[in-house]
Amino acid sequence: MFKAIVSAATLSSTLDSVSVLVEECKIHLDEDGLQIRAVDPANVGMVDLSLSADAFESYEADGGLIGIDLSRLEDIAGMAETGQLVQLELDEETRKLQIQIDGLEYTLALIDPDSIRQEPDIPDLDLPAEVVLEGRDINRSVTAADMVSDHITLGVDDGEEYFYVDAEGDTDDVHLELTEEDLIDLQTGPAHSLFSLDYLKDMNKAIPTDAEVTLELGEEFPIKLHYGFAEGDGQVTYMLAPRIQSE
Amino acid sequence: MFKAIVSAATLSSTLDSVSVLVEECKIHLDEDGLQIRAVDPANVGMVDLSLSADAFESYEADGGLIGIDLSRLEDIAGMAETGQLVQLELDEETRKLQIQIDGLEYTLALIDPDSIRQEPDIPDLDLPAEVVLEGRDINRSVTAADMVSDHITLGVDDGEEYFYVDAEGDTDDVHLELTEEDLIDLQTGPAHSLFSLDYLKDMNKAIPTDAEVTLELGEEFPIKLHYGFAEGDGQVTYMLAPRIQSE
Amino acid sequence: MFKAIVSAATLSSTLDSVSVLVEECKIHLDEDGLQIRAVDPANVGMVDLSLSADAFESYEADGGLIGIDLSRLEDIAGMAETGQLVQLELDEETRKLQIQIDGLEYTLALIDPDSIRQEPDIPDLDLPAEVVLEGRDINRSVTAADMVSDHITLGVDDGEEYFYVDAEGDTDDVHLELTEEDLIDLQTGPAHSLFSLDYLKDMNKAIPTDAEVTLELGEEFPIKLHYGFAEGDGQVTYMLAPRIQSE
Repeated sequence: MFKAIVSAATLSSTLDSVSVLVEECKIHLDEDGLQIRAVDPANVGMVDLSLSADAFESYEADGGLIGIDLSRLEDIAGMAETGQLVQLELDEETRKLQIQIDGLEYTLALIDPDSIRQEPDIPDLDLPAEVVLEGRDINRSVTAADMVSDHITLGVDDGEEYFYVDAEGDTDDVHLELTEEDLIDLQTGPAHSLFSLDYLKDMNKAIPTDAEVTLELGEEFPIKLHYGFAEGDGQVTYMLAPRIQSE
Repeated sequence: MFKAIVSAATLSSTLDSVSVLVEECKIHLDEDGLQIRAVDPANVGMVDLSLSADAFESYEADGGLIGIDLSRLEDIAGMAETGQLVQLELDEETRKLQIQIDGLEYTLALIDPDSIRQEPDIPDLDLPAEVVLEGRDINRSVTAADMVSDHITLGVDDGEEYFYVDAEGDTDDVHLELTEEDLIDLQTGPAHSLFSLDYLKDMNKAIPTDAEVTLELGEEFPIKLHYGFAEGDGQVTYMLAPRIQSE
Repeated sequence: MFKAIVSAATLSSTLDSVSVLVEECKIHLDEDGLQIRAVDPANVGMVDLSLSADAFESYEADGGLIGIDLSRLEDIAGMAETGQLVQLELDEETRKLQIQIDGLEYTLALIDPDSIRQEPDIPDLDLPAEVVLEGRDINRSVTAADMVSDHITLGVDDGEEYFYVDAEGDTDDVHLELTEEDLIDLQTGPAHSLFSLDYLKDMNKAIPTDAEVTLELGEEFPIKLHYGFAEGDGQVTYMLAPRIQSE
């Protein structure tokens, strides 16, 4: 059983955070909210999302699992006007999702969850450095790095106490240093890893510019990015595997 | 003789309502206003437009007929800034239209009306059901139906007294019911017809979201859509032939 | 030595004025400001730009010459938000330009000035007619002419005292007359020349709609267009060679 009412904005944020990595996903409809975990086909980027029942106008579920085509549901949510509510109801018999927006009913065929790539186990890493910054600083870094390279280095200078971003192109370079003053928070530790820019660009698309984003970093280790949405009732964690430093 | 001054907005609305169906049209320049009737090449969609002399700042005509390239005249009207007036004057000798916008003169070659597809006779149908709704509800219906199908069913439930929209895709369906409360007006009668969505999408492009649109409907009969523009001094009627229900 | 701080808006205006004609240019970094002169590959359109040191928040230079890829530097300036400052510093050893925007450092490889097309000598023409008008009137003229032709005639009617624009297409024509009342200033003299519209369209892209633009014109002579930017601390002169009247 699943029946819920949610703002179109919250539904769209949820879907967008996942669709930057995968086209289809499984959604766990637990009693206290929904959960999505997914990994991209190359096993490089993962997302772990939870949206509490508190984020909904009303929410009833008893532990089901559904599979959805993300862009299809994003298009439906996109038809709602600002502030409109979306009503979702699972038809157990037909295995279709009934979606209602101000009288308009959309019957969405679900995807068999077994046909969707297996959900990843998000490793529980204890990373030595932690940086808290605004989404707009991630956006700036990614946009600038993209002008010169396909890769980006993120690190923390343990001695000087700053977070840095590096991108080296054939002729041009980009470098950004953010000290404790520029950041919301900084816990230094040895951290320096190279990442594929494409994945960070995709994740950046989903991160609101005014979100408070926590980065957890290590030396040639995966990076974890966390941020909240839906006024704190939603949480997204991205994890991205490092590239081996080729130089 | 034809000489008139009209707001760029009214001129653009007039042309846009016709250009969604045809590229060229004949304009009847009558004493009390202008008239355009046109049918698309496949004989499926028709438009009948009248714009009263009252819609103009000044208007003088004595019954001429001109042929125009719609997109060309739309581009010219589009050069005007918001609120600017467009002056139109027919040069009888050269058969060109002199168009002036704040000192800028554009001399537009007209098209021989005889070379333009014949104007349709708009059949005088007595359709049993009538629905009056806002343009935005047509827009919602067409946008949603387009996500699942190339066809759309419009009908009235005679017993339950509501207007409905249906679109059935291979896996997903769209359904909208609007009762008397949701509508501006409803006169029930037996009505249920299938239409090609492409035509309705084109007509929808010309219908302002805040326009009051009257639909006349029957059972496997053409639909008529009327709405006013230019503060009521302009009237557009679209007529669309039904598709045979294949199922 | 070169070190300067300038608003992103002023930097962008400077680069945009030149990039409409060429992809790479030399910049003279003089003590009292910078100078750029360039000619398009076909030797038809020239630009002569100066930006005084007063246009900068701070400016230090001692007569260097650098070569830049315009679109690359435009992209970097485009990353700045409205009102942000851009810091530029030449690294003499590496021959790279260090660009800083709110902590973000971009290291831009310069181009060897010797590899860039030679700068033109801007001829010192004494043209008989002068017209001062708003950028928006140039925009209107160019947009309208572009609807009918690849060429545009600009001239001054010496007797009747007006500036005119003419474009003749195969079927349609465009004509604009601006008298002293419509213009900011007019000094009549014999002037009537045909120009390639493509070049004027490109120059028009860089001219702000509210700029006061001075045109200097003659009979089958080049046209000169001047306008100021950066609150008068920057000056752009375009020169465009006429086309031979083929009719």
